[in-house]
Amino acid sequence: MKKINIVLAIMATVIIAGCKQQASEPSALDVIMTRTSIRSFTGDPVSRENLETILKAGMAAPTAMNNQPWRFVVVTDKEKISSTFGSGPRSGAFTTAGAVIVVCGQTDQRNMFWYEDCSAAAENILLATHALGLGAVWTAGYPAMERIEPIQTALNIPENVTPLCIIPIGVPAENPEPKDKWKPENIHWEKW
Amino acid sequence: MKKINIVLAIMATVIIAGCKQQASEPSALDVIMTRTSIRSFTGDPVSRENLETILKAGMAAPTAMNNQPWRFVVVTDKEKISSTFGSGPRSGAFTTAGAVIVVCGQTDQRNMFWYEDCSAAAENILLATHALGLGAVWTAGYPAMERIEPIQTALNIPENVTPLCIIPIGVPAENPEPKDKWKPENIHWEKW
Repeated sequence: MKKINIVLAIMATVIIAGCKQQASEPSALDVIMTRTSIRSFTGDPVSRENLETILKAGMAAPTAMNNQPWRFVVVTDKEKISSTFGSGPRSGAFTTAGAVIVVCGQTDQRNMFWYEDCSAAAENILLATHALGLGAVWTAGYPAMERIEPIQTALNIPENVTPLCIIPIGVPAENPEPKDKWKPENIHWEKW
Repeated sequence: MKKINIVLAIMATVIIAGCKQQASEPSALDVIMTRTSIRSFTGDPVSRENLETILKAGMAAPTAMNNQPWRFVVVTDKEKISSTFGSGPRSGAFTTAGAVIVVCGQTDQRNMFWYEDCSAAAENILLATHALGLGAVWTAGYPAMERIEPIQTALNIPENVTPLCIIPIGVPAENPEPKDKWKPENIHWEKW
């Protein structure tokens, strides 16, 4: 009986460990519904591995005619982050972020849908960041040219590439409740 | 001993059932990486419950200044789907879809970022659809005005509301491999 109990105890431990591993990966619907903007970070860095996972998620978005017009500039150097983004909108988020992803579009390819493709990539970036337990906030670039020109210069981004949005990423230092934006009145069934 | 074994068997069953429930919800990163465009459906309807879950996911996207400029027209009537979308691009996807979501933006609110907000909602819609085991494809609207004018008329969409994209949704009748779009050369570290 002792032997049987030891075997059963080992089995239970293995099953529970399997469950815990499963439970550590949040479901897609949960991640979509609980993602919210994080504007304050601990200052800790974001690992290269996590950044590559996040960028892979960005590049998994759909694009018109599979054009993949996205280009990404990733800044992790604290001084470079501060000098490039520290005096613009949301400067607080930038000064505490561990990394910044500038989502850009190549705009000289006669692709009139580039900003939609790059917006889909940006949303994937936000979701993957949240799925990894990190935080982020979408700060707008294009078409607010006065915001993007200084960034374009500071990061040496060529003229035919346009920053669509700028996403600071880091370990959250705040835990805001996600907004409830469900409004049935925004849905029109069958026709307007 | 018999009693103990029965108790242990019940415990194991409960634990395994819990595991299975957990496993039935795919992780966010898996959903992002395995989503791909589905252009052929079985013709089966999409339940109202699933459509509302998908629309909730859409409305969970971030928007500039929390403006929520999105408006959705959802068509489930087969004849209406066919007469509205059956002769345009990707008509095959539309004639077999169970529902169509037209993602629109309210464009008279001085919100220059409306198409980015609505694109983020569209990406959430595609991801939630895939998470539910359904399929979808993003077909482009704005700024291709010649595509959206007939839809605007057919669905009675007012002038100050612009269809950004049109998403047929249904039970997949094909199982294409997701494209591998990971290109490290699209990433520039620290500066261009």
